[in-house]
Amino acid sequence: MSNTDSALPLLNWLKHYNREMLIGDSMAGIIVAIMLVPQGMAYAFLAGLPPEYGLYAGILPLMVYALLGSSRALAVGPVAIASLMVGTTIAPYASQGEAALLNAAVHLSLLVGLCLLLLRLLRLGSIVNFMSHSVISGFTTAAALMIAISQLKYLLALDIPRQLRADQQLGFMFQHLADIHLPTLALGLLAVLILWFSKARLGSLLQQWGLPSGVSQPLSKAGPMFAISLTAGLVSLLALDSNADVLTVGMIPAGLPVLGELSIDLRLAQALLVPALLIALIGFLESVSVATALASKQRERVDANKELVALGAANLAAAVSGTYPVAGGFGRSMVNYSAGAQTTIASLISALVLAVVVAFFTPLFYYLPKAALGAVIIMAVLPLIDIDSLRSSWRFNRADALTLLGTFVLVLALGVELGILGGITLSIGLLLYRTSQPHMAVVGRVGDSEHFRNERRHAVSTRSHILAIRIDESLYFANTRYVESFILAERAARPNIEHVVLICNAVNFIDASALETLENLIVHLRNDGATLHLAEIKGPVQDQLAHSDFFQHMGQGQVFFTTDEAMKALIFSHPPKAITHR
Amino acid sequence: MSNTDSALPLLNWLKHYNREMLIGDSMAGIIVAIMLVPQGMAYAFLAGLPPEYGLYAGILPLMVYALLGSSRALAVGPVAIASLMVGTTIAPYASQGEAALLNAAVHLSLLVGLCLLLLRLLRLGSIVNFMSHSVISGFTTAAALMIAISQLKYLLALDIPRQLRADQQLGFMFQHLADIHLPTLALGLLAVLILWFSKARLGSLLQQWGLPSGVSQPLSKAGPMFAISLTAGLVSLLALDSNADVLTVGMIPAGLPVLGELSIDLRLAQALLVPALLIALIGFLESVSVATALASKQRERVDANKELVALGAANLAAAVSGTYPVAGGFGRSMVNYSAGAQTTIASLISALVLAVVVAFFTPLFYYLPKAALGAVIIMAVLPLIDIDSLRSSWRFNRADALTLLGTFVLVLALGVELGILGGITLSIGLLLYRTSQPHMAVVGRVGDSEHFRNERRHAVSTRSHILAIRIDESLYFANTRYVESFILAERAARPNIEHVVLICNAVNFIDASALETLENLIVHLRNDGATLHLAEIKGPVQDQLAHSDFFQHMGQGQVFFTTDEAMKALIFSHPPKAITHR
Repeated sequence: MSNTDSALPLLNWLKHYNREMLIGDSMAGIIVAIMLVPQGMAYAFLAGLPPEYGLYAGILPLMVYALLGSSRALAVGPVAIASLMVGTTIAPYASQGEAALLNAAVHLSLLVGLCLLLLRLLRLGSIVNFMSHSVISGFTTAAALMIAISQLKYLLALDIPRQLRADQQLGFMFQHLADIHLPTLALGLLAVLILWFSKARLGSLLQQWGLPSGVSQPLSKAGPMFAISLTAGLVSLLALDSNADVLTVGMIPAGLPVLGELSIDLRLAQALLVPALLIALIGFLESVSVATALASKQRERVDANKELVALGAANLAAAVSGTYPVAGGFGRSMVNYSAGAQTTIASLISALVLAVVVAFFTPLFYYLPKAALGAVIIMAVLPLIDIDSLRSSWRFNRADALTLLGTFVLVLALGVELGILGGITLSIGLLLYRTSQPHMAVVGRVGDSEHFRNERRHAVSTRSHILAIRIDESLYFANTRYVESFILAERAARPNIEHVVLICNAVNFIDASALETLENLIVHLRNDGATLHLAEIKGPVQDQLAHSDFFQHMGQGQVFFTTDEAMKALIFSHPPKAITHR
Repeated sequence: MSNTDSALPLLNWLKHYNREMLIGDSMAGIIVAIMLVPQGMAYAFLAGLPPEYGLYAGILPLMVYALLGSSRALAVGPVAIASLMVGTTIAPYASQGEAALLNAAVHLSLLVGLCLLLLRLLRLGSIVNFMSHSVISGFTTAAALMIAISQLKYLLALDIPRQLRADQQLGFMFQHLADIHLPTLALGLLAVLILWFSKARLGSLLQQWGLPSGVSQPLSKAGPMFAISLTAGLVSLLALDSNADVLTVGMIPAGLPVLGELSIDLRLAQALLVPALLIALIGFLESVSVATALASKQRERVDANKELVALGAANLAAAVSGTYPVAGGFGRSMVNYSAGAQTTIASLISALVLAVVVAFFTPLFYYLPKAALGAVIIMAVLPLIDIDSLRSSWRFNRADALTLLGTFVLVLALGVELGILGGITLSIGLLLYRTSQPHMAVVGRVGDSEHFRNERRHAVSTRSHILAIRIDESLYFANTRYVESFILAERAARPNIEHVVLICNAVNFIDASALETLENLIVHLRNDGATLHLAEIKGPVQDQLAHSDFFQHMGQGQVFFTTDEAMKALIFSHPPKAITHR
């Protein structure tokens, strides 16, 4: 783990840099660039921006990440889900013209960058932990579906209004089946076919042919490049744009992005703040997840704090480049890693390739049909649709499955922002519901051992005048009444009970509401002829109780180190009979 | 516990009803009525309604509660906090005249009643458990302060605009010190003095004089009645209303409330729904808390479900009587209990007394100065200011203290509704924050026993190649990364470790996010030459894991019944050295 030495991980890596690593980085960087060119243009469309802005997002931000990032193989740049979120956020500005749209996108980049840096400063990076796996999975699946559906219009050449919900878009397409433009659809399906083939078959085929991996690897990842080259070639050759009205990308201005001065509109910034925060959180989460998974394969760890800084700075670089927010993408990062990226030098090389493309080769994209870009996006997001998580969480933990489904539905119905917030609320609500009805067990001794287990699950022996109850949850406001009722009901069912022992080895904290309930319980049991004892209290809880006058309230009740000690001490002990008083 | 026999608790009590119980009920009922007359009028003022509506709220709703309620001594009727909430909710309708104001109040009663009945139907009464003791304490203290400040204007005879916040009201008073009406202030202070004396001193004084408790008890509780009688007498005698411009209650229409038909305005109902729900929840909570405390003294329990129905019906009765929502009040219930109430017959008697007062004696209140009613309210709410809870929770559990203070500030700053919701959010946020950084301990064996304790707290022995970590929290999305980091850091600090044993006796559930993290942890440790084992998994968690393929992921790792078994099994076991692979 060499990233502990210098503040800049890259400097540490360069200490041991060698020719072999450079070859790996170069190969990976070029392959990622080959993916990034079509994906960048496609994602820019998804965000509602001209295609060159997706390419711009693949230059300066990558260079900045390469300097600051702690993940060797994370491929930063335009990503599908952030592009969708940017698209829905800035769509209202479309009516004011392209300049307003771009201005909003740049403001978003700036705000996303600032949010990430602020999270670092406030040490709040762990806030992403409140998005559970199920919320993310439900959201990602819904977003992938929304993205895929939104791209169908390019394959069908239907002019679907932007503001329609995904289901409304499908309805619109269904109503306008007759208007589908068949030449466009044919080109789109051709692109889909090429993408599918190069992903699913080409690699093993090239291996069978005995090509060296230095050739077969780039070729098998170049599916998107093949798809756009071939379809653009066809359009150009057959002049399908003029002869058959196939929509193409058209003129893309050549040259590197102009690093403009930022004129910040505070009212616009205010309006974009909440979406920016969500884009920042989701982007950070996606990046850290991918980076952690890749680092784990090399027995390394990713420094989440450094990632906040690196991604924050990368987004500021996006703002300076006049383009929209970036993040670490899943697909390209995987390709980067498996193509042999050793350090972030690979990202630098990707950025250089993109810079060359943007500077000199944009005219090549003139004939590129939009349908091919739509196909690139659809094939990129389909793997994000995550049915496995739903299936396994349905078996493992119903609350997770409900959260996943709920988030999925909420994102589709209410949109990305409200959907995510609703999903988080749902996951927290289900958590509280679960802990509000904790598992409790009346326990007895296992054989002659010192172990006590649930009398319903194990063959155990109990004493008729001692009721030992294990509480499998911390005691706090939402469950304190439930716990009290359970104990009183169990006691009421056993009139001979003189001692109630609460086994607290799973009670990790007690809050003020629960403390009050316990004090009431002591009085209630005492009035009813029974004494409350505690066993196996944890150190932190014991300390906590010592800061209250709880132990004075316990009266005859004792605190035992173990349940075994409690049983041995109470076996011949009978408390004074309670005095009934009014 | 006789309330298990019949659906109507009163019928069960009547089976054993005798002369002695009737005497107790009558005494208590009359004393409560003596308190209820001035309090009812005062609380109606607090709600912004004519005084007679506070009296109406003390007739039919009490009768209905007497029939259905499961608490023998709960005194239902107009209460301070609900009156404040009603007042702030209906204030915007004041500009449309008194009829609109009353109409809004009646709609609130109806909605509060329906909310309570709906909560019963949906079995959601436990929703009140999500309001922690600290939220309630912070809210009650803030509300008591707001109520007391709002009444100062009657004592000072200043015309303070209703919509001002409490601090603004204080500022207004300070700016208008010169405008204070001294005769009114004198009457108000006289009332305060009488109330203080009868509460703090009169009881013991009467006992010293040797009066029988049948006389001394009603007298010592009649402070409010003395205060209003004496001040009204003074105003009448000295004609202070015309001579000194002292504001009085004036003409109160005599006669019982007219049971009107309800014409329901659905748009109004919609606008009032959220405040109604909060009034219902707070009222229910207050009532159940008081009823539980009183029942506990008699070794009885209150049936929360019956209380939902009884309080719901009582509020519908309030709507039918044309007045505003009711609840079980703290102060009068305590008086009712200690004055000897045996059953809800006491409430019936209170209602009858109030009906007689309303029917025949309202002209007596003509000269009653509003300042005296203000004094009655102030003295009634001051005991609700709860500094003790803050002090004890500050020592016991800092999060509760923060919740209490936060709720207090939020209620004062944002008003009752947003303040309560903010307090609940705060308490849940602090709970999540706490469980997101759980306590974990590296444990060792205590002497030769089978017990394992935190190596930092106890003298324990450990093995150099086994790392046993006890996790003191359930594993779920908000803490799973933290737990993973802790385990990896502890392992990294001990390079000789070959076995990591997670002791899960405090792990009450594992969600899908945590399951994924555990699976990653297994891989991570394996790559690093260590094997993950589990010990002391609880039954429910074991069942849960069996529904996933987690045990297959464990590879060489084992699941042990106890930590002792794990230690004995692993002491001579060394796993194969990990193979480093890329």
